[in-house]
Amino acid sequence: PPTLAIGGISYYSYQTIKKANEAGNGQINPSIRKDINKVVDFIDIEDITEKASLCRCWRSKNWPYCDGAHGAHNKATGDNTGPVVIRHKENK
Amino acid sequence: PPTLAIGGISYYSYQTIKKANEAGNGQINPSIRKDINKVVDFIDIEDITEKASLCRCWRSKNWPYCDGAHGAHNKATGDNTGPVVIRHKENK
Ligand code: FES
Ligand code: FES
Repeated sequence: PPTLAIGGISYYSYQTIKKANEAGNGQINPSIRKDINKVVDFIDIEDITEKASLCRCWRSKNWPYCDGAHGAHNKATGDNTGPVVIRHKENK
Repeated sequence: PPTLAIGGISYYSYQTIKKANEAGNGQINPSIRKDINKVVDFIDIEDITEKASLCRCWRSKNWPYCDGAHGAHNKATGDNTGPVVIRHKENK
């Protein structure tokens, strides 16, 4: 019935527009510490026992560390992000 | 009539989705090493003399290091990105 079609199209549109807008405001950080002007994190070298993988996709749930979330982001958008890994030479 | 409503909603959705998509493809890395599937960088702790500021905005001309380019990106988009800083405790 027409009402169902209108509802369906409206819902689909709403979701798709929402998603497109979120992707398209030019911001690369959708959710981390949006209460502050600039997210800068500090890691003490002395605290890195073996190595540290640091997130650069802004989607990790374990910020500032990489939790693999770059994978879903890359797959969804065709992007090629990944972490920076800080390591001791002997662990290469 | 329902047909007109469906047509109207569809047209509006089409235009709005098109516009939102054109504004952004959802990728956060516009230009760094787009020839590879995943950009992962490695930093040796032993090579960090004092400290290292590592780019997370994907706009540095001195990748993987921060060159301050996050400032222009943040200003242009209202984003709040910044580097991760690796340092020795004594340099705090
Ligand atoms: S989760 Fe963000 S770079 Fe891996
Ligand atoms: S230039 Fe990219 S975080 Fe500073």
